[in-house]
Amino acid sequence: MRAMRYYGPGDIRLDNIPEPVVGLGQVKIKIAWCGICGSDLHLYHEKVLDTALNATESQPPVVMGHEFSGTIVELGPAVNASRLSVGQDVTVEPTITCMQPTCLDCSSPKTRNWCSQIKFIGVSGGGGGLSEYIVVDQMLVHPLPPAVSLEVGAMMEPLAVAWHAVKKANVSAGCSALILGAGPVGILLLKVLRAFGAGWVGVSGRSAKRCAFAQEHGASAVFDVASIGVDVLSETLLATHQRGVDVVFDCAGSQATMDTAIGAIRRGGIIVNLALWSTKPTIDMNILLIKEVVIANSMCYADDHPEMLEALAQGRFPDLQTLITRRIDFEDLVELGIMALVHEKHDHVKILVHP
Amino acid sequence: MRAMRYYGPGDIRLDNIPEPVVGLGQVKIKIAWCGICGSDLHLYHEKVLDTALNATESQPPVVMGHEFSGTIVELGPAVNASRLSVGQDVTVEPTITCMQPTCLDCSSPKTRNWCSQIKFIGVSGGGGGLSEYIVVDQMLVHPLPPAVSLEVGAMMEPLAVAWHAVKKANVSAGCSALILGAGPVGILLLKVLRAFGAGWVGVSGRSAKRCAFAQEHGASAVFDVASIGVDVLSETLLATHQRGVDVVFDCAGSQATMDTAIGAIRRGGIIVNLALWSTKPTIDMNILLIKEVVIANSMCYADDHPEMLEALAQGRFPDLQTLITRRIDFEDLVELGIMALVHEKHDHVKILVHP
Repeated sequence: MRAMRYYGPGDIRLDNIPEPVVGLGQVKIKIAWCGICGSDLHLYHEKVLDTALNATESQPPVVMGHEFSGTIVELGPAVNASRLSVGQDVTVEPTITCMQPTCLDCSSPKTRNWCSQIKFIGVSGGGGGLSEYIVVDQMLVHPLPPAVSLEVGAMMEPLAVAWHAVKKANVSAGCSALILGAGPVGILLLKVLRAFGAGWVGVSGRSAKRCAFAQEHGASAVFDVASIGVDVLSETLLATHQRGVDVVFDCAGSQATMDTAIGAIRRGGIIVNLALWSTKPTIDMNILLIKEVVIANSMCYADDHPEMLEALAQGRFPDLQTLITRRIDFEDLVELGIMALVHEKHDHVKILVHP
Repeated sequence: MRAMRYYGPGDIRLDNIPEPVVGLGQVKIKIAWCGICGSDLHLYHEKVLDTALNATESQPPVVMGHEFSGTIVELGPAVNASRLSVGQDVTVEPTITCMQPTCLDCSSPKTRNWCSQIKFIGVSGGGGGLSEYIVVDQMLVHPLPPAVSLEVGAMMEPLAVAWHAVKKANVSAGCSALILGAGPVGILLLKVLRAFGAGWVGVSGRSAKRCAFAQEHGASAVFDVASIGVDVLSETLLATHQRGVDVVFDCAGSQATMDTAIGAIRRGGIIVNLALWSTKPTIDMNILLIKEVVIANSMCYADDHPEMLEALAQGRFPDLQTLITRRIDFEDLVELGIMALVHEKHDHVKILVHP
């Protein structure tokens, strides 16, 4: 079968490799669509994720892609046939953890993302979404609700990132929020916040186009920080009558966004970090103390898919397909996919690849 | 009446001032004991708290002291006589907030510590515990349980600081904890953790004497960081089979304690900051993200006294009186109180002053 494999920084090749074979409790999926993620770009450029996500243990080449959907083509022995069946459209939670009986973190699906041995399908080897077929453990496979397209199904992974973060923030209906970063995760956070009945939601981004996306998808206010004179902090305080917002989501990870978050959060509020940081911020702990702020970190997802897919089935995430800004074939992955996200990233939200 | 008043850095005087007069809903208390707090030392030396706690709005001289107990000598009009009565031994929650109907934070006693107008009795003017009498609003007055001495009653304020922080950490029986800092708050955290049924609790401090105090009061392990070769992080990881602790309390507030906290916390754990910081730490957000750690901040207390006093009545805080390392009179406040805590602080936990 055809598979896009990563050999090293800047070196991705379209290879022909054997189809994977289902084992005990495993499911074989014919992949329909696979999204390109910011972490794929990191991997492509600089391998920043290697140590973070235990990727170094796998030797290249590895099949890339962890945001994917497809159709079940084969069930291995001991797969629960009342839950999964051939022909079913599915999405996959792409985290592999040790699942040892001695691992406290793996003892609950809700804390599996804490496992120190966590690896990612499509990052750490063992197959990925940028191939024709993949074999994964049945535990990771989630049927798509009826009438949900395979295209939208390929966005369930980043949507789960956003869902997990909003759950961490413990938001209630009518809450105010500020999202720092209008990339795919920022805009999906906005979608999830709207699904939870949030009130005022401001979004800051680095381009007019990204900000326009956020506005189309329900932002109460957008702040194009690439423009001169835009002050996210003072605008947010103005919008909240100087009280500050209930929750800030940092999807950008810089000293500037941390400073904005600390200034914009209300007393007793929560800052949720979802970003990978290229620098270590300096933090004024005294302000956080006096405001009694919580900084939570949200790392991927852990068994969030079932509840999120239920919300999707209820129609709580309208217009997700409009976030797909390009559809490409394998052959065009580097040129029209990765390079587009590097050089024209402000024009795109999600680029999907079809094998 | 006699009152110890703060005039400016290094300038505290024993003055004779008029006794305060009870107003509507107020209670007059004859003060028995008043503890000296680290923040009193800050005030004495450098006024670091001024901006933080809105203290600047009050002009010196101000009566000092916010950790105190006493006996009710008079009830003002409209005081709830079914809750408070003359002759009752009481302690006081010394936070004054705006209590305006428009203040969301003051709308619940549980969030009153978020009020942007928060001030402290004994810091911000309007009377303090280092005087013969004080008049306070009935809302702030809490009767001591039977058989609790007025000496122990003077420790309810720092105990409430510890109680509030442990509640923030959402600890469960058997949890493991690391307390960074073996000052009064660190040792009271240990008492509260023991009351909550914590398992392994390590305490780090800067002297053998403080560490010995912690050991006497139930620490599973103590780390005297002033000694050569003591590595709190590796010892904590060793004690927790390399998993890390469920919760770290930072009572010291330095780059070193933050680094230790980040290293010693388990995946999914919580770091609770109680310290006032003299520097802004640099924080490795990527480690916090991958470990999905929460950094909570615990600011004083907010209606913690009733539940905490109930626990005290149940005998869940044994031997609190042994934390009182010196009892002095007004005249000796500076010499035997403040200066002792500056120059011999490692020999003391709590010094109480009697008017």
